[in-house]
Amino acid sequence: MTDNQVYLASVGTALPGDPVGNAELAKVLGANEEWIEVFIGTRTRHFARDLTTGEVRWSLADLCARAAERAVKSSGVDLADIEFVVLGTATPDTLMPATVNNVADQLGIDQVPTFQLQSGCAGAVQALSLGRTLIASGEYRTGLVIGGDVCSKHLDLNRDLSKAAPSDLVNFVLFGDGAGAAVLTDEPRGEQVAVKQVLNRFTGLGRKAGQVIEWFGLADRFDDRQALTEDYKAIEEQVPVMAVEILWELLGELGWDAGELDYLLPPQLSGRMTRKITEQLDVPTATEVSCVAETGNNGNALPFLQIERLLETMSAGQKALAVAIESSKWIKAGFALEKV
Amino acid sequence: MTDNQVYLASVGTALPGDPVGNAELAKVLGANEEWIEVFIGTRTRHFARDLTTGEVRWSLADLCARAAERAVKSSGVDLADIEFVVLGTATPDTLMPATVNNVADQLGIDQVPTFQLQSGCAGAVQALSLGRTLIASGEYRTGLVIGGDVCSKHLDLNRDLSKAAPSDLVNFVLFGDGAGAAVLTDEPRGEQVAVKQVLNRFTGLGRKAGQVIEWFGLADRFDDRQALTEDYKAIEEQVPVMAVEILWELLGELGWDAGELDYLLPPQLSGRMTRKITEQLDVPTATEVSCVAETGNNGNALPFLQIERLLETMSAGQKALAVAIESSKWIKAGFALEKV
Repeated sequence: MTDNQVYLASVGTALPGDPVGNAELAKVLGANEEWIEVFIGTRTRHFARDLTTGEVRWSLADLCARAAERAVKSSGVDLADIEFVVLGTATPDTLMPATVNNVADQLGIDQVPTFQLQSGCAGAVQALSLGRTLIASGEYRTGLVIGGDVCSKHLDLNRDLSKAAPSDLVNFVLFGDGAGAAVLTDEPRGEQVAVKQVLNRFTGLGRKAGQVIEWFGLADRFDDRQALTEDYKAIEEQVPVMAVEILWELLGELGWDAGELDYLLPPQLSGRMTRKITEQLDVPTATEVSCVAETGNNGNALPFLQIERLLETMSAGQKALAVAIESSKWIKAGFALEKV
Repeated sequence: MTDNQVYLASVGTALPGDPVGNAELAKVLGANEEWIEVFIGTRTRHFARDLTTGEVRWSLADLCARAAERAVKSSGVDLADIEFVVLGTATPDTLMPATVNNVADQLGIDQVPTFQLQSGCAGAVQALSLGRTLIASGEYRTGLVIGGDVCSKHLDLNRDLSKAAPSDLVNFVLFGDGAGAAVLTDEPRGEQVAVKQVLNRFTGLGRKAGQVIEWFGLADRFDDRQALTEDYKAIEEQVPVMAVEILWELLGELGWDAGELDYLLPPQLSGRMTRKITEQLDVPTATEVSCVAETGNNGNALPFLQIERLLETMSAGQKALAVAIESSKWIKAGFALEKV
């Protein structure tokens, strides 16, 4: 790697509509409110789709463009200086065009490379990794990385879940919608946060997928297949272990001690799971930065929502480390930030 | 950009099953064989799905893994030396896991970064561009780039198309399935072809998408929306113009004269369209390398199928230039190769 340091100048986020509480969600799905409180531990989430009418109020492109606009505005960088756009998502609006191109169109960006990464909980880190490499290569100076998901595209409001098994129900109460974006630069600007390290590594060889999300084409949309399946037991068992491995691996690569960390951004699965993982990460001197209990698991938006909270209090010389895990086919991911 | 030259060491491809001729396709779809011959100009294509039973015989991951295996085998590079995998596709097997991770699993690859780009006809070039940047950055030495599509996921065999309008019918007769892969290296190995230039630029600001491909989630899979829509008139009008622009732009960046080109790899829309575009590109001294009339438009596989044909005759010192266009939201793409 060329030693060109890459910086995060700003972050912007977008959450659709008002937060939806557990009582409202439980009512719509015919589920038990207390079960959501205890088993999931998430209090609110946001949906791009109206829960009553099913109407789609925001597309993924709408949310991403709004988040990106906010990121560009607070970065001090001109829109005309954006030299690439990278989007990570698991739930594109359509297969074609790639949503990133509709986001560029909404923003008024043209004549630059665009990349859309198909990815889940590690996707925002993959987008950050790709953006960092594009700038570190020396070919580009300034770019936008975006992450977002509209998980409610899978929320079948016509289903009565009152008799659904927990393993089925979990797929409907874990998720939310949202987007986040960051402006990356080759010199300190805006927030002046150095992206010190990014980890992005497939570790799924020979391992069963922990999560599968189907899509339906014309040829198979009348199938009875379940669209979302989660191996929640495998996730509960393996994610905390992987989180600890990622933490120590990143610290080793950086030459940092755990005691030096001012902030820790743990994986955001659900309020309850994130609490358990954070306990096992066991970095008591670092301030935890989490959002999932209020935002729901909105996939590729999460790391940006965490960074937004981080930037509210991070001061010069402080260090933060983020851990993310994609349980679908087991990707280890994470990144380290240090404010100049 | 660091001036690290990146090389293509090998290419491998995979086409599912036997070629399907126009007579057979016309019979299954209730379409007119002569219309396919004249209007599309494609003679055969391959399908991962059995046309009679609808049975899925190969997944996209199967085809991509087979193509990648062949590429690695003929590259002289050890599988253990592959440091990243990039896949470009418009038709992933599932939304999660990303198909690239199942491909890595099938190949026996672990502990490396994987990226899956959601993209159409420019996707193979985007994958090549990303792979080139990863190596040129100095962070990686050897990697796999793959492109593939299983378009037959959209082929509704229960529909009677005997009374379909041409604008509807075209979506069913243009496409095919397949995959291709290349091994990229930081020094000349295998075929020793230098990747001199890669163009990948969004040009869709304010322009209507030329092609839209929907996917259906649980919440909307019973909609009556058409999954594939093409603005064939816009494509027919704009793609040849854009192709000429890309040709001259790439030649300008390379400092090459059109007369120096030994080979030209034109966009592969259909047999008929590719003939028209090649005429307008007007580089009579270059040998045309096309495959679409035999393979159908299998999206992200096409540039690899063209490179495979190119390598059969390319000799040291020869130059080739490829032009690709993504009409969904208008991406200009292309690349230049020179055999050492």
